[in-house]
Amino acid sequence: MAKAVEILLVEDNPSDEELTLHALRKYNLVNEIQVVRDGAEALDFLFCRGAYVGRTREDGPRMILLDLKLPKIDGMEVLRQIKADEGLRRIPVVVLTSSNHETDIVETYDLGANSYIVKPVGFDRFTETVRQLGMYWLLLNETPD
Amino acid sequence: MAKAVEILLVEDNPSDEELTLHALRKYNLVNEIQVVRDGAEALDFLFCRGAYVGRTREDGPRMILLDLKLPKIDGMEVLRQIKADEGLRRIPVVVLTSSNHETDIVETYDLGANSYIVKPVGFDRFTETVRQLGMYWLLLNETPD
Repeated sequence: MAKAVEILLVEDNPSDEELTLHALRKYNLVNEIQVVRDGAEALDFLFCRGAYVGRTREDGPRMILLDLKLPKIDGMEVLRQIKADEGLRRIPVVVLTSSNHETDIVETYDLGANSYIVKPVGFDRFTETVRQLGMYWLLLNETPD
Repeated sequence: MAKAVEILLVEDNPSDEELTLHALRKYNLVNEIQVVRDGAEALDFLFCRGAYVGRTREDGPRMILLDLKLPKIDGMEVLRQIKADEGLRRIPVVVLTSSNHETDIVETYDLGANSYIVKPVGFDRFTETVRQLGMYWLLLNETPD
């Protein structure tokens, strides 16, 4: 049986992936993290199709950390499809991106993103940001069962 | 000139109001907090009408802390009107409530709330929760200018 996934991390940058996983594990915030590296795989995972045809939606994730610039299908389109789906739209989506462009911030909120975080520069600040967002969304925030 | 408001706190319980203000001020998270004690006043404030006809939307708030059980107009209706308005819908709304009912959680996400927090019992846990959510939404999260 597949274990329930707590965080789906959608990130194509290997260095940012490593930093994020390091921070989440260091603070014991999460046991099961699924990493996907492009938008098409993110949608396959969430909609339980393609390579993920065996899993069910009950297996999570509890939250989604979503980069915007992604290969194949970009983060905006992934976000649009999540928030248009009755069974997925209540999963909190935190956009974690290097972009601080006003147009990106506006568009992600208009598509229904729950939160927008600009990736901080530097190991310590990046780690602290991931720790704080992990604590907030996994320990403080409530989602439907 | 009115000062820009950082947090709009919509809370009719005097004890919860006091605890929330205490926590936000203790950690220097916020300078300008507007408190309103029912849903009708919350909407008057946000839509700059009634007693608030002199202010403009550019004066904020940057985020909204919203109780659900409120006199006059309840929190769900306040949330619905915020998220239906082009100029208000990108302001993060965190529902902070004593309810942990599944139906309330589902409905608030369906209406577009950004986050749902159950009020913890006890002074220390309440203070820590408000500190964490204040840090997250005021220091980490980005909203459009």
